[in-house]
This record gives sequence, C-alpha cells and structure tokens, in this order.
Amino acid sequence: MLQSQNQDTPAPSERIILGIDPGTNIMGYGVLLVKSKKMQLLDMGVFRLEKLETQQDKLQRILEETLRVIDTFHPDEMAVEAPFFGKNIQSMLKLGRAQGVAFAAALHRKIPVVEYSPSKIKQSITGKGSASKEQVAAMLSQLLQTEAKPKFLDATDALAVAVCHYFQRNSVSGGKSYSGWEAFVKQNPNRKKS
Amino acid sequence: MLQSQNQDTPAPSERIILGIDPGTNIMGYGVLLVKSKKMQLLDMGVFRLEKLETQQDKLQRILEETLRVIDTFHPDEMAVEAPFFGKNIQSMLKLGRAQGVAFAAALHRKIPVVEYSPSKIKQSITGKGSASKEQVAAMLSQLLQTEAKPKFLDATDALAVAVCHYFQRNSVSGGKSYSGWEAFVKQNPNRKKS
Repeated sequence: MLQSQNQDTPAPSERIILGIDPGTNIMGYGVLLVKSKKMQLLDMGVFRLEKLETQQDKLQRILEETLRVIDTFHPDEMAVEAPFFGKNIQSMLKLGRAQGVAFAAALHRKIPVVEYSPSKIKQSITGKGSASKEQVAAMLSQLLQTEAKPKFLDATDALAVAVCHYFQRNSVSGGKSYSGWEAFVKQNPNRKKS
Repeated sequence: MLQSQNQDTPAPSERIILGIDPGTNIMGYGVLLVKSKKMQLLDMGVFRLEKLETQQDKLQRILEETLRVIDTFHPDEMAVEAPFFGKNIQSMLKLGRAQGVAFAAALHRKIPVVEYSPSKIKQSITGKGSASKEQVAAMLSQLLQTEAKPKFLDATDALAVAVCHYFQRNSVSGGKSYSGWEAFVKQNPNRKKS
C-alpha cells in the first residue's frame, strides 16, 4: 500500500473515490460516489493509448486524462491496483512510468493514493481472491445497478479498486468488515450465488 | 529515446537543458545553459529520498523538487538517463514510478523529454562508452570549469545526460559531430588524456 490509512480518522459521510488501472496500452478509470454509506457510479471509461506512437505521447495522454477526470469529479482519494510481478523487466519499467505519471496527477492535486493487490480487490468484492474479471464485473453490476460490458473490462477493473477501497476504509474506520459479496448476500437474502 | 528529435529544426542560439537522474533513493539534477555554443553550469544537486518513509512521500518529493527546478530555471528540454535492465522486477517498477513522476512534471510544463542510454552518455562525454563515473565527472569538470565532488556523483550523472543531449542535438542539427572528449582535445591540443 502506498499510503497507510490513519485508522483514527472517521470516514466522511460523503466522498468520491477515483479508481484507476493504469496500463501502457489501455488505462481504465472508475469514479465512485459514497453517500450515506451507499455507493453510486458517477463515471467509468477507458483511455486508449495503443495507437499513440511514442512512450512520451502515451505518458502525456495519461497525465492529461487523469488530470481531466480529477478536475471534473474532484475525488477525495485515488485507489490503484498493484501490478502482478510476472511481467518482464522492460515492460515493468514502462508500467511503472505509466503509474508514476498517474500518481503525479493525483499528488499534484494533493489527493492521497492507496494501492491494493489484485487478490485483495477480488476478495473484497466477490469474497473470492481468485475470482475472474467477469465475476468481479457481475458483482459490480449488482452492487452499483449498472451494466458492465465486456469492452469496458479495463474500466471495471478500475471501478473494482475504488469499491475495494471503500469497503476497506469502511471496515477499518467503521468497525464492521464485510466484502461486497457479503453485503450483497445480506441485502439479497433470497438470491444464491450462481 | 522517448522522443525523436526533429532533425530539420535548428538549435536555438540560447537554451537551457535540465538533466535528471531519477532514482528511488537519491535523485540528481543538473541545469545547463548553452549560449553561443558555449556551455555553462547553472545549478546541480541531489534530492535525498532515502529517509522518507513511504513510496508516496518519495514520489511527492520527486514531483515537488522537479517542478521547483523547472519553475526556477525554465528549461527548454529535459534529458534523462535510461536505466540498465539488470535490476530486479520490483525495483524496476519503483524506478519506473519515480521516473514517471519526474516525466509528468516536465510534461505538465510542456517540456519535451529525451532519453539516452548510459553508454551513449559516457561515449558522448569521454569518447569511451565504458568510462567510469569518475572519468565522466573529471571530463565534466574540464568542460564546465567546475569541480565535481564525490558526494555529488548523482548530480554529475544528471549533468552528464544534459551535456550529452547538447552534443547530440548539436551534432544532429549543426552537421558537425564530436564528443566532449574530442571537443576538449581540439580546444586543448597540448594536453594529454591521463
């Protein structure tokens, strides 16, 4: 985790969480409003970087788009998915640069950045650390009453980390800890997990 | 190289080049003024990051310090040393993030970023791609009439990439290509390389 949360600070009653999934070819983002303990999707989408020729063009686009999203929604926090370390060393440097640019946009606007591992995010949302992208997307659709389309899976990843951050923050400061799946079961006692 | 230079654009008669060496523990910088084909050192130094606790604190410091240097000297270009790929995959991600933050500072101020390999920098300055840090520092001292102190070796690396960029840019647009060593020999025909 990039920043350790202050566990004594109560969560404010309304706040906006920006989730981002900064890759080198596609960058996903999701903007979540949390109000009176209810989540609402404000925006989600992807920036396509694969057609930009140079690495500098890609980094420039990441900076511009991240700042645009920040200046549109004024998030209180930014949550990011930590990468797997299975990639090769050169692509890791490129990924690090892409993330560094996105972090810089948040830091420049004084927005704290928090990082979660992929398994933590999946666990938090579906109750299963090994869930598929599709399972995460399906659960997000239920939680946020929105339709997750396959072409938006990168945006869904970004939204997932924002939702994960809300659950984690809430469980730390509110005392009660439950995953998205557990909350869903509680709210929908007659539904069964398929 | 992050950005391909436009080879038809003549070098302006006066310009400022910022060289940076963004590491995860120490970040070096060097600011070079080029006026009437003469180089002058404006500033060089290091930011120490190793005592900052979290990665976010380090990235925040890199962003602030890079913006401070940019807003003090208004460089026309930023030159960066490309890293070796010999490090482990986790440190490569951290290094990429540090570089991404420094790049973002430049991109935010619309300053193009150019990247050179370590051997290209050494070749350009000393005439030898395998030169030691000390040999590079000694040549820079000669070229810029400044004293390179051991504690400033990270700053010297940053200055070296700025000088390399000047030589490369000059050789591309001016037609005449020579390394720092060649220029030095030409200007000091009676001195011998020790």
